[in-house]
Amino acid sequence: MKLKRGIFHFKTPICVSGFAAVAGQKESKGPLKDDVDVFLKGRFFGEKSFEKAESKMQQIAVIKAMQKANLTADEIDAIFAGDLLNQCIGTNYGLRELEIPFVGLYGACSTMAESILVASTFIETGLVKKTISVTSSHFCAAERQFRFPLEYGGQRKRTAQWTATAAGAVLLESGNKKKIYVKSGCLGKIIDFGVKDISNMGAAMAPAASDTIIRFLEETKTTCNDYDLILTGDLGRVGSDLLYELLDQKGVNIRAKHKDCGLLIYDRNDKDINSGGSGAGCSALVFCANILKQLEEGILKKVLFVATGALMSKRSNQQGESIPAVAHLIYLKGEEKWN
Amino acid sequence: MKLKRGIFHFKTPICVSGFAAVAGQKESKGPLKDDVDVFLKGRFFGEKSFEKAESKMQQIAVIKAMQKANLTADEIDAIFAGDLLNQCIGTNYGLRELEIPFVGLYGACSTMAESILVASTFIETGLVKKTISVTSSHFCAAERQFRFPLEYGGQRKRTAQWTATAAGAVLLESGNKKKIYVKSGCLGKIIDFGVKDISNMGAAMAPAASDTIIRFLEETKTTCNDYDLILTGDLGRVGSDLLYELLDQKGVNIRAKHKDCGLLIYDRNDKDINSGGSGAGCSALVFCANILKQLEEGILKKVLFVATGALMSKRSNQQGESIPAVAHLIYLKGEEKWN
Repeated sequence: MKLKRGIFHFKTPICVSGFAAVAGQKESKGPLKDDVDVFLKGRFFGEKSFEKAESKMQQIAVIKAMQKANLTADEIDAIFAGDLLNQCIGTNYGLRELEIPFVGLYGACSTMAESILVASTFIETGLVKKTISVTSSHFCAAERQFRFPLEYGGQRKRTAQWTATAAGAVLLESGNKKKIYVKSGCLGKIIDFGVKDISNMGAAMAPAASDTIIRFLEETKTTCNDYDLILTGDLGRVGSDLLYELLDQKGVNIRAKHKDCGLLIYDRNDKDINSGGSGAGCSALVFCANILKQLEEGILKKVLFVATGALMSKRSNQQGESIPAVAHLIYLKGEEKWN
Repeated sequence: MKLKRGIFHFKTPICVSGFAAVAGQKESKGPLKDDVDVFLKGRFFGEKSFEKAESKMQQIAVIKAMQKANLTADEIDAIFAGDLLNQCIGTNYGLRELEIPFVGLYGACSTMAESILVASTFIETGLVKKTISVTSSHFCAAERQFRFPLEYGGQRKRTAQWTATAAGAVLLESGNKKKIYVKSGCLGKIIDFGVKDISNMGAAMAPAASDTIIRFLEETKTTCNDYDLILTGDLGRVGSDLLYELLDQKGVNIRAKHKDCGLLIYDRNDKDINSGGSGAGCSALVFCANILKQLEEGILKKVLFVATGALMSKRSNQQGESIPAVAHLIYLKGEEKWN
């Protein structure tokens, strides 16, 4: 079989052997409150800045995931990580004490899927056995970097999304050890439909999600009915509706199988939230706190996780540029034994 | 053989089938002037901002590398890229028109080696056949982002390095097609020796280079004498001297085999340069314009390329943080046929 570009079907068993989710105050009061591993109070978590607080979250997520898999840092072959902050400092400072061989990634809010896909590919070679994928975001750090300082008190548009204060880590191992396997992946392409409004990231990212989902379904000759859940990362209400429209044009209706991390993370009555949650930590939290648990417990069996990322910066936006986006997909299967 | 963590010896032939280097005005007047593929005049290259100019460089480097390998964008299975700009916009905007499955990386000035190492690992799986690795930097974009706007006219310290305006792209293919092969790689760990001076990146990065080189030599049971060249990326004069000291403490003397990209890129009499060149484009340019050519022509046979990256941001520095660094290594061999 000639593979389509960017689509990988793994021939070795790659199992999820541990996962952990860390949540901030707002996130720990939402629908996921019973699933989160570690709650952090306030905004600073005992650190002196929002950025250092984000680093701490990543570190806690990694340590917790290792604990749950009964592993220590010196047993991990490689760590794959990134975040939204300039130069990915959430990652660089959060992971520096762990001394694990490191692959720095930038996928914006797609990082949870990107890091799992890249880690899985490394495991597929047989050259590494145990990896960690981790990402995070922090509302206060993201607001002042991408939009306005919190003190400015700017009003938020109805299309805007709320950057989650959260982190998630996934430990992958080669072999038949647990009940969740990464079976396939699809690398996203950079897609730009010309959306320029940074208060409407969902609209900017929906075309990337559509492109990746269509490519994967076509290549695998599967339909939505072959999956229990198609989970997008952070399109929110506006982006999800646009995704439905884009897929309708291709004759694909995912409505019955679709959920979006940005719509699962917060109480929908919370008026701060507008179109939904966002941030690399949003899909990381929903995926690590809830979805992997449902796969482990057999409630879900076949899941497509499509995390989307907006690839602009504050400067590119100020220079009048549109917002390119990317969506990386992983296909996870819950089964007693890999086959 | 039990592999040490983060060290990969590739079992399939991964050949360099094309490479291209793009240089700005200052870089095209230096020692590499006869080797560069594309020279760009001025600072803007016909674009409206430094950042857009950097994107253009990446795009030109990729297109040129594909031309030299007689390939088009739709034949490339995946592209691995990143740069120094916030949210890697040099990459995101430079590559969006190419529609190639995309892995965004953040390795700062280590990106050339990181992107080749990750691409090689993907090829090792057999799931991709043709990849591109690319990175860039732009002096003006980096100065205003990390230090001061150029108009400020600040004086530069003697330990400071000059961010290169350049881009380099490397096309890898599986199979026995050309004369240069990526044989091994060593992922860097995040290393932080507590250096806080952002005008002395060489000192911040030397410990990471030392760690990676020692780990690789120990694991492969080789010495400096087994290689024709150990090429570090962007330590400059200060960092190179510190690297020698650190390696001396481990009983390793690389002086006779060592060169640094930061010391090869510019005329050493140019008084702007101080400790040497830097930026993701610096090692990319030296590697793609000169080193790969020497491997192709058989002048060099065995090269360790160790690109170093400083993982701080302007904000982490303003918050009093030290500068963590990473150094990724690839081992390249020039040979008629892979074996």
